[in-house]
Amino acid sequence: MTRNEFDLIRDYFARQPVKRRDVALGIGDDCALVEVPEGCQLVVTTDTLVEGTHFLPTASASDVAHKALASNLSDLAAMGAMPAWCSLALTLPEPDDAWVAGFCQGFAALAEHFQVQLIGGDTTRGPKSITITLHGHVPKGQALTRAGAKPGDWIFVTGTLGESQAGLDYILGKTVVDKARATTLINRHYRAQPRVTAGQALRGIASAAIDISDGLHADLTHILTASGVGAKVDVAQLPLSEALLADQASDEQAQKLALTSGEEYELCFTVPELHRGTLDTALKHSGVSVQCIGQITGNHRLELVADNQPLDWVLSGWAHFKEPHRDGS
Amino acid sequence: MTRNEFDLIRDYFARQPVKRRDVALGIGDDCALVEVPEGCQLVVTTDTLVEGTHFLPTASASDVAHKALASNLSDLAAMGAMPAWCSLALTLPEPDDAWVAGFCQGFAALAEHFQVQLIGGDTTRGPKSITITLHGHVPKGQALTRAGAKPGDWIFVTGTLGESQAGLDYILGKTVVDKARATTLINRHYRAQPRVTAGQALRGIASAAIDISDGLHADLTHILTASGVGAKVDVAQLPLSEALLADQASDEQAQKLALTSGEEYELCFTVPELHRGTLDTALKHSGVSVQCIGQITGNHRLELVADNQPLDWVLSGWAHFKEPHRDGS
Repeated sequence: MTRNEFDLIRDYFARQPVKRRDVALGIGDDCALVEVPEGCQLVVTTDTLVEGTHFLPTASASDVAHKALASNLSDLAAMGAMPAWCSLALTLPEPDDAWVAGFCQGFAALAEHFQVQLIGGDTTRGPKSITITLHGHVPKGQALTRAGAKPGDWIFVTGTLGESQAGLDYILGKTVVDKARATTLINRHYRAQPRVTAGQALRGIASAAIDISDGLHADLTHILTASGVGAKVDVAQLPLSEALLADQASDEQAQKLALTSGEEYELCFTVPELHRGTLDTALKHSGVSVQCIGQITGNHRLELVADNQPLDWVLSGWAHFKEPHRDGS
Repeated sequence: MTRNEFDLIRDYFARQPVKRRDVALGIGDDCALVEVPEGCQLVVTTDTLVEGTHFLPTASASDVAHKALASNLSDLAAMGAMPAWCSLALTLPEPDDAWVAGFCQGFAALAEHFQVQLIGGDTTRGPKSITITLHGHVPKGQALTRAGAKPGDWIFVTGTLGESQAGLDYILGKTVVDKARATTLINRHYRAQPRVTAGQALRGIASAAIDISDGLHADLTHILTASGVGAKVDVAQLPLSEALLADQASDEQAQKLALTSGEEYELCFTVPELHRGTLDTALKHSGVSVQCIGQITGNHRLELVADNQPLDWVLSGWAHFKEPHRDGS
């Protein structure tokens, strides 16, 4: 009997290790059947990675799988949701056992960590791409959105920023670094740890939240637009790793990188003064550091300051490997 | 300000006409938030169409959109579910206003018909493909699956069979027909009407169901495998349109086409003798004809008969434009 990668993928996922009790019917019928807990809303997000646009052909299959699932988990984290199930649409041009095995391994490791069960999908022949639709749930009315920030709220980010872009620059051959540092940078770009636990801990504390996928400056702007407010951000407060500071020509360059680096999958969120005191306790078990970088204002602009002096930095936007063509229509 | 197709798509879908009351948060945040009715299970399915594999570059954008959504609706129909929301991952190589406008038009028409609200997705740059994840719901425990057929149950199919393959043959230039007939065939291939209302009407009546996407022979086999049974099908009972019979060299050729033609998006289902009498009444409002084509047996084989004489037909399987390569692993 002949077999191909599509059989292999189906077989692999049919015996996946995550078996949730809220899955009434998983892979193998026309649809999956699952149960959303009573009193909860269903949370849904979709992300596509295309080879050549979101990852290079040289990327390891395991890294690609991690990135595909992590980017979706990060969206759920930004809503304060609990991940539960996902669908995987995998398009592959050629049979490639090693690639498929690596993909399944990378996918399973992250899926197990967050107890996400694969409940269906589609495997097709074509140029390599991965689309994941991830589902989760959140107690009704408690989801974090982009729209709740108010003047006076404090602006926070998790982790450190800038290294995903530094990793991408290395992957693209724009920078040369030693081998140990190269591994760190590649992992920062492809193997971000989505802040799922932190996002859940922020329910009832944060007034707005977003995950940093387009870069802090762009994503904070999304919060400001959705909330109808402005912000003042002190670039000296941006959380930068020592490695990034050592790597960049100047502090200013590192700060600019922290403002524009995309696919960081850290959270940016706002906290009213009233809840600021409970933040550390709430996040204690999430294993993630947070840094206050500024404050929401009422003036509808995003102002960057250093030592309280305004900056007029021109920032380049985050782009994938291939920037979409623009036309004038 | 420059704009591109991705802005256009986002704008279009942001003002989509379907606004469901169970959507708490639609397009525009990190995730969508929706509410599954109490006492219902969530039903989820995903399908990908890749240009060159599932549709030709010459296919109209509106047809492609219809086919992408219809194939998912058909999966929900096979479970007896009520469609509700979907995510759309659209990957496009080049800006193409006309294509995008046509796609949106075709998508919206079918989405409105079934009151499906687009709640999110992703637009990316790359080789053209469409992945839709469709969500619906079904009263708990009432979903139709492939696994419930029992010996003695009657086997039914909706509509007529074979014309999707005939349409594909015409599209591929394998057959020549007059212009009016060409339009009919293209519509049969690209514009199938998913049997959503019929599927819902079959809850509590059918013991098993599947939609015909791989061809009746292959899909009925899926029911037999899942249910651990066999079947006897009388090929003289296959529902064939007069147009198909006129088009094919012999009745036998038309019957073989009806057994193997994929992407028909009709339903194949089984009904216990006890419920056979209620079938017509239940389906009265679905606007679809059904035909009994045989009976479930206990012998684990799918037997084809004509005038109660066994047939030893060798059937070719359904394939997309590009058959996946097979290796011997």
